[in-house]
Amino acid sequence: MSPPVAAATLCVDGVLLDGEPVGLRTAAGEIVELGQDVAPRAGDRVIDGRGLGAVPGLVNAHTHAAMTLFRGYADDLPLTEWLEQHIWPAEARLEADDVYWGTRLACVEMIRTGTTRFLDMYWHPEATARAALDAGLRGVIGTPLIDLGDPERAGRVRAAALESTALVEDLANERIEPSLTPHAIYTVSEQSLRWVAEQSAARDLIVQIHLSETAREVDDCLATHGVRPAQYLDRVGLLGERTVLAHCVHVDDSELDLIAERGATIATNPAANMKLAVGGAFPYAAARARNVRLGLGTDGPGSNNSLDLLADAKLFALLQKHASADAAAAPAHEVWRLATGARSPLLAGRNMLAAGTPADFLLVRTDSPELSLGDLEAGLIYAASGSVVDTTVVAGQVLMSGGIVEGEAEIVAMARERAARLGVARSTRRAP
Amino acid sequence: MSPPVAAATLCVDGVLLDGEPVGLRTAAGEIVELGQDVAPRAGDRVIDGRGLGAVPGLVNAHTHAAMTLFRGYADDLPLTEWLEQHIWPAEARLEADDVYWGTRLACVEMIRTGTTRFLDMYWHPEATARAALDAGLRGVIGTPLIDLGDPERAGRVRAAALESTALVEDLANERIEPSLTPHAIYTVSEQSLRWVAEQSAARDLIVQIHLSETAREVDDCLATHGVRPAQYLDRVGLLGERTVLAHCVHVDDSELDLIAERGATIATNPAANMKLAVGGAFPYAAARARNVRLGLGTDGPGSNNSLDLLADAKLFALLQKHASADAAAAPAHEVWRLATGARSPLLAGRNMLAAGTPADFLLVRTDSPELSLGDLEAGLIYAASGSVVDTTVVAGQVLMSGGIVEGEAEIVAMARERAARLGVARSTRRAP
Repeated sequence: MSPPVAAATLCVDGVLLDGEPVGLRTAAGEIVELGQDVAPRAGDRVIDGRGLGAVPGLVNAHTHAAMTLFRGYADDLPLTEWLEQHIWPAEARLEADDVYWGTRLACVEMIRTGTTRFLDMYWHPEATARAALDAGLRGVIGTPLIDLGDPERAGRVRAAALESTALVEDLANERIEPSLTPHAIYTVSEQSLRWVAEQSAARDLIVQIHLSETAREVDDCLATHGVRPAQYLDRVGLLGERTVLAHCVHVDDSELDLIAERGATIATNPAANMKLAVGGAFPYAAARARNVRLGLGTDGPGSNNSLDLLADAKLFALLQKHASADAAAAPAHEVWRLATGARSPLLAGRNMLAAGTPADFLLVRTDSPELSLGDLEAGLIYAASGSVVDTTVVAGQVLMSGGIVEGEAEIVAMARERAARLGVARSTRRAP
Repeated sequence: MSPPVAAATLCVDGVLLDGEPVGLRTAAGEIVELGQDVAPRAGDRVIDGRGLGAVPGLVNAHTHAAMTLFRGYADDLPLTEWLEQHIWPAEARLEADDVYWGTRLACVEMIRTGTTRFLDMYWHPEATARAALDAGLRGVIGTPLIDLGDPERAGRVRAAALESTALVEDLANERIEPSLTPHAIYTVSEQSLRWVAEQSAARDLIVQIHLSETAREVDDCLATHGVRPAQYLDRVGLLGERTVLAHCVHVDDSELDLIAERGATIATNPAANMKLAVGGAFPYAAARARNVRLGLGTDGPGSNNSLDLLADAKLFALLQKHASADAAAAPAHEVWRLATGARSPLLAGRNMLAAGTPADFLLVRTDSPELSLGDLEAGLIYAASGSVVDTTVVAGQVLMSGGIVEGEAEIVAMARERAARLGVARSTRRAP
């Protein structure tokens, strides 16, 4: 299955934008016209927008997409047992084609639920990149860099990181961006973290790293380095505007001050944090007060297990209200901006559709029961699931129309084959 | 729109049940045959079950369905401000037809997401009952009984409760059951609570009451009555096998002992509890250890705002893991039984499809990306939203097939008219 071919020009006719019917035309991957007077022209692919609302695409700021393969394989286990006894042994058997088809499956789910761009950290990143390319999504993709403090291993994994960066760059598509992804401060040596910082600056690459997911990570960092994790990252030169910090459940105010000052982006993952019971909740009110750059991630589908970012947007809002004992915390309009990537320039940096911006947008069913009454943003955050998305467009390509993603059945079949090969598919679930 | 007409007999052919393809035949509202040798007969309405899995319908153990009308109208507000300044003034204008169409809208969403029975407390219960009847769902329906300690008012609301009970009974349909629904111990006098207990026993009616939603309710009860809320309910004779206690966030171990001993059912509502920031989480581990009868509710769509019970099942599991700092808490199979009503005889009392049981079941898309890999129950709880439901059958009637609920567009249009009449529809959301 090759990448969807974009119509040269696309016109969505009569779609609601901020409550008014407009026309929206795209060309060369961008929105070129938008307004009440915009109508289809000869040669346009035309989408009837009546009963639909146009909103920006969603940005999944942290995931491990191919872990769809491990979904429902070993749930309800403590983190260490889940990883050491189930996930790592299975991952040791992973081949590139497993990652490709696991990611394709994830891409179908992301397209169906309105995600247009995702930030990914997983093995065989060139396969993830091919999958995102073929699916039509935007991806920021890297391979976990783990050296466990072993200099020999450090040499190998740094070379592998550069190699995978080159493979992703070889795809030569503006939708697919390589990334450096050191796993965490407790799995990567200080020397390798400094090397990542240098490479990121020299090559202008986004860095993704897990930070302060558990309290133990903070205690260990204090014991080993004498400072808290964000301060340690700053010391090694990795806390900058190119860095995405996944989790940050256990950051304190001094770290948030520093993260805000350096312009790093935090990707919060409420579903995975709750499912793995990491303790506490991301300190959103404190981060918001400092204007910390923020994004929302699902984390991997092995620890969520959904890729429906609207579901996690609701979960984020509810968890913040619950944790702060304040029903007014994390209101819908703030959370909607979080889900669209508007709160970090690394993610999308904006929350509006306008001429001159990339043609990444969704058409949502405003006549669906869930969205038929009340404020649209509140409806999307609190009442809807991703199933209200009718049409997903990325770079002017229509990846889903009328709820149908082409090739879904083949992708499901291939992912099942790969899961069976890995020994993680339950036999009782397979039709004879 | 009149109730869906049941085919005399229905046969689902080749559907997966516990991983094996079977035939499932219904007659007169019950499952009559189920097994590998069961095939369609002449006169059956036949559903091709290939690619689908048969599971029991879900039971929404606590809602105020017609509050769809108030959805997205006043979110992100503290409970008191939300109620006093927004909801109550709008509710003062409610007419029976508002409740009818608001409930019809809710029924579409429940049917689409797999709920086959709901327990409801709202104004104009005869309109709720007609809506459930016409939609084809099962409902346990009552009107909030509130006397605020005023004897004159007590007389009126008791009469109104009996009158609405009679109106619901007049519908003479086994799917629709009247219920007595005293609002809460702080809005109903002890005399009226005792009256409800007597009436419930005499007429064998389910009682629904909000209990211990907030810590303040507990403090006030201790101050006024010298005992905690469950103990007070027991004192007035209302803690029995017919009683459903909504919320119970702030019950202690002594109350759980008593609730278990009396056989009352707790309906937990994780989404609404988090959204309204009532503090704490339902003490599931303690309730489970005592074999307390349990169900899962969405609460009203004005304080959730979804009716997708699978979303709330996930939320329940995640909240329990988070609150207990234990990733193994509330595993998928337990939560799946909770969502199907299997953990209380008042709700469904079972979690299996079998010959001789009511033909209330769902066909879920086991070939959907979300359910294509891994354990089915884990997939339903963690990976899926209600959008994986393809077919909803209640009492042998097909209420949805292929994701289509008949009459949806008319229901949405009527609900919008009623919301506009009530002054709660946002003008920016309405297409011209």
